[in-house]
Amino acid sequence: MAFDPEEWRQYRAKMNERILSVENRSIRRFFALDTDVYEAGALDARTKELMGLVASLVLRCDDCVRYHVERCVAEGVSAEEMAEALAVALVVGGSITIPYLRRAFEALDAFSV
Amino acid sequence: MAFDPEEWRQYRAKMNERILSVENRSIRRFFALDTDVYEAGALDARTKELMGLVASLVLRCDDCVRYHVERCVAEGVSAEEMAEALAVALVVGGSITIPYLRRAFEALDAFSV
Amino acid sequence: MAFDPEEWRQYRAKMNERILSVENRSIRRFFALDTDVYEAGALDARTKELMGLVASLVLRCDDCVRYHVERCVAEGVSAEEMAEALAVALVVGGSITIPYLRRAFEALDAFSV
Amino acid sequence: MAFDPEEWRQYRAKMNERILSVENRSIRRFFALDTDVYEAGALDARTKELMGLVASLVLRCDDCVRYHVERCVAEGVSAEEMAEALAVALVVGGSITIPYLRRAFEALDAFSV
Amino acid sequence: MAFDPEEWRQYRAKMNERILSVENRSIRRFFALDTDVYEAGALDARTKELMGLVASLVLRCDDCVRYHVERCVAEGVSAEEMAEALAVALVVGGSITIPYLRRAFEALDAFSV
Amino acid sequence: MAFDPEEWRQYRAKMNERILSVENRSIRRFFALDTDVYEAGALDARTKELMGLVASLVLRCDDCVRYHVERCVAEGVSAEEMAEALAVALVVGGSITIPYLRRAFEALDAFSV
Repeated sequence: MAFDPEEWRQYRAKMNERILSVENRSIRRFFALDTDVYEAGALDARTKELMGLVASLVLRCDDCVRYHVERCVAEGVSAEEMAEALAVALVVGGSITIPYLRRAFEALDAFSV
Repeated sequence: MAFDPEEWRQYRAKMNERILSVENRSIRRFFALDTDVYEAGALDARTKELMGLVASLVLRCDDCVRYHVERCVAEGVSAEEMAEALAVALVVGGSITIPYLRRAFEALDAFSV
Repeated sequence: MAFDPEEWRQYRAKMNERILSVENRSIRRFFALDTDVYEAGALDARTKELMGLVASLVLRCDDCVRYHVERCVAEGVSAEEMAEALAVALVVGGSITIPYLRRAFEALDAFSV
Repeated sequence: MAFDPEEWRQYRAKMNERILSVENRSIRRFFALDTDVYEAGALDARTKELMGLVASLVLRCDDCVRYHVERCVAEGVSAEEMAEALAVALVVGGSITIPYLRRAFEALDAFSV
Repeated sequence: MAFDPEEWRQYRAKMNERILSVENRSIRRFFALDTDVYEAGALDARTKELMGLVASLVLRCDDCVRYHVERCVAEGVSAEEMAEALAVALVVGGSITIPYLRRAFEALDAFSV
Repeated sequence: MAFDPEEWRQYRAKMNERILSVENRSIRRFFALDTDVYEAGALDARTKELMGLVASLVLRCDDCVRYHVERCVAEGVSAEEMAEALAVALVVGGSITIPYLRRAFEALDAFSV
């Protein structure tokens, strides 16, 4: 069950490449949009990454949670701020999010080394 | 279909009172916790309200969206910031959130008068 | 916003009749199965209705919640038992269920007259 | 509770205009993409609309269901084909979709006049 | 893919400890509440665990299903009662729950040894 | 993380057998209905499998996605058609479906050998 950040990153990169190799304009546009929407604007990038984290936890997607934990760490979000964001998600999403919260903290520890 | 903020607030207040009149400790504790988690800490209250808004839209709960739109307006979140938060939620949650996005903007206009 | 049990029952009966008028075997079999699964077996009918209520609240379907509230009342579930079931659902499903919880109590009051 | 197609269309058009009046590039690009993805390609438009209908029912979004029912009718999908698509969605999504199925048939009758 | 109850329990215990080591009052209160709500009251503990099981299956969370299967076994719920509870969840949640149902039975067999 | 179709098929067959060994009529009827609903009628089997695929992706169930990818390949759905179906699901379901989309393409490659 141990989370391996390097294996995870490689799988993600390989499969993204696989998906974008398909001649499908809608999929490509969606991926471009998905990068664009997190860029700093009226809200800064770290606030948007925190939003992505909260959305990922309440929707219970482990890979999405890991991705935004990694991005939050890269944007300099502190452990205390991350815990408060996860607490909001836990209260909104309920106890059904707890297993995903465990894996979020596991990812946080892996990415904070 | 028109959203009436005053009717909406009254229904919410009346039913919250009804729920808390029940002698059930878990429900009461949950309601207290739900207030507490949005209080300023390492993250300020407006960031937490924006998170609540994004979580509510991706989970597609109209009343929750309305509540956090109202709270964001009260915290001084600008229309441009709110639009960026809603854009993140739209990309995360997909086109299935669009009807809820319409009602989010309707609520924004109603609460911004 | 006031819930009208009679109008609600009539709409449900009319549309169920409309759906079952369609010559589609899968739909008919599903409806039969949906009745069957709540019948008393190793578990009694009231336990099953309470399960249906909890499932409906965590999945946030107002009409389903109302249906199982009505069935629970008919099975003699007490208000205190119903509140405990709803508390479990609230903790599992989180604050996003609160607007549905309000409508659950509104339905409970309407069906308990 | 009666569904009024004309009022529904007007609200949708008005709020889409409101949303697109916002200077937010991500939202505009998402709306463009959402139109584009249903255009005929390797799969024809009616197959894509049927997919949109099934996705909308299993995700339980009334407005999305209505939109795709209207589009399916416009693409010449027969009532029998629509019922089979809805049956697939019912089996995938379970009894929690039944209230949405009722409103799907109500919309079908309203749009088939 | 084989489920290992001991490894699963250890991971859960370790990560719960990790989460509760964080100085975050909301998270701690939520965990306390999550224990409290399943305690016997007007409804007995086994009915509440069965509700937790049904909620976990319809929300499709493997770890939550496993947890409540283990708790149901501990509370003396029979295999027949558990199957009836899972049948209710299957009908409510639809065929999308079937892979989770497989893992529920795998967990049941692992915990019943 | 590599997907092994053979191991996956064996686990599925073994656990389906386990589930159907239980003397529970509702579960058995549900499994029969789940097979029946994909049979050709007014819509052909490949259209129904594509619907099952889209529904599985928007509901984010890896095993369900894999099952319908395999069935689509068996029904002669082309890679281009499958990509268009997945694009519809991506736009409906949003970026939260992307990790599941990666695994869908991994399954497609595994089943297309």
